[in-house]
Amino acid sequence: MTNPTAAMLVIGDEILSGRTRDANMYHLAGQLTQIGIDLQEVRVVSDNPDAIISAVRALANGFDHVFTSGGIGPTHDDITADCIAQAFGQSIDVRADARAILAAHYAKSGTELNQARLRMARIPQDATLIENPVSAAPGFTLGNVHVMAGVPSVFQAMVESVLPTLTGGAPLISATIRVHRGEGDIAAPLAQLASRFPMLSFGSYPFQKDGIYGANLVVRGTDHDQVQDASAQLTQMFAP
Amino acid sequence: MTNPTAAMLVIGDEILSGRTRDANMYHLAGQLTQIGIDLQEVRVVSDNPDAIISAVRALANGFDHVFTSGGIGPTHDDITADCIAQAFGQSIDVRADARAILAAHYAKSGTELNQARLRMARIPQDATLIENPVSAAPGFTLGNVHVMAGVPSVFQAMVESVLPTLTGGAPLISATIRVHRGEGDIAAPLAQLASRFPMLSFGSYPFQKDGIYGANLVVRGTDHDQVQDASAQLTQMFAP
Repeated sequence: MTNPTAAMLVIGDEILSGRTRDANMYHLAGQLTQIGIDLQEVRVVSDNPDAIISAVRALANGFDHVFTSGGIGPTHDDITADCIAQAFGQSIDVRADARAILAAHYAKSGTELNQARLRMARIPQDATLIENPVSAAPGFTLGNVHVMAGVPSVFQAMVESVLPTLTGGAPLISATIRVHRGEGDIAAPLAQLASRFPMLSFGSYPFQKDGIYGANLVVRGTDHDQVQDASAQLTQMFAP
Repeated sequence: MTNPTAAMLVIGDEILSGRTRDANMYHLAGQLTQIGIDLQEVRVVSDNPDAIISAVRALANGFDHVFTSGGIGPTHDDITADCIAQAFGQSIDVRADARAILAAHYAKSGTELNQARLRMARIPQDATLIENPVSAAPGFTLGNVHVMAGVPSVFQAMVESVLPTLTGGAPLISATIRVHRGEGDIAAPLAQLASRFPMLSFGSYPFQKDGIYGANLVVRGTDHDQVQDASAQLTQMFAP
């Protein structure tokens, strides 16, 4: 049985302009690996309707799950919800359930639920809400697309809300062996070992710092015994 | 005149599995912004030939420049150079110029230029080499695709080698105004101001920490006077 597949779509000019360093991709990648969903592609696009709509369509067709990050706040540049609705040919408007959540949240602090804040209750017709314990305004799931906020604390809380609702597969297990030799000397024996374990993947990540160089060799797979066996052989192979 | 456009392709299972946090996207985004090349899309794909080839083709057709990161080392999982050659229908083999660079480099340290290291001299027929002052093994440019290493120090050195050869546009200038109000109160006046400056882009990035909340409002554009004017108006609009 193969694991479910996933893609991520990060929406935001602030990442592409180099203003902000993305944190959500790294977080989601780690979470999905733990529950056995294979993240196979990430795309980052700007706050542009055509770019968002075509990326959502391509990814929703290509993978079991799509996770989006960014563009669901109250300001004029927050266009993700409308783009997702359009990608699925759905109508979108302020929805009573989302409005009620916002009304209750803002009532507590005596903040007016104005026009701008109401934008955050715009939810496509058939979507299911994703709970946001940090700042109330919900994300949503439409088809196989899970739409979440870009602010890392909110994104992480939404990921925590949505992942338990999904069926994962076999968690990916990995082992890392640090080898103090040049990659050029590691390559041939590593490739030979890799060919003996077709169900595992072997990566080599070189490092070089303060005159010390080598590579971290990473064995990944879903079969615990095979990962153990391969990493034991690697350790022996490259013992100092 | 509009600026040249760019996309980036990050190649590597280690990013998608959450093992490594990407650093190259953030670096390249900042560098391109400074020289007036608009980074409009980033894709991250795994070490899979089909995924790499189809992403390279799509991005090379859609943007003026494509920058790739990762997968050009000596190990069996380093398949980027061959995939790029295939995407462009080019032959690829150990090339004399790249081989000479590696031979000179390894001769200095008395290291054998073995089969694995020679893989790093596999360069597509019509490609131009990109200098690598860190560890010698070159990157290359083929058509509008610039192929660079994944190790951040090497990636950065290659970016420094290749960017001066490209024609940029007007650098993107940005101004950030920190506002201590809820985004819901900022949204309407911000949208109104944005509509008066169609040549600029306005982003709102909320923060919330230790009970203090607000948003960083970012004005971006290539016209210095307009950015100044708009940010002055924003500052006045949201003065404490």
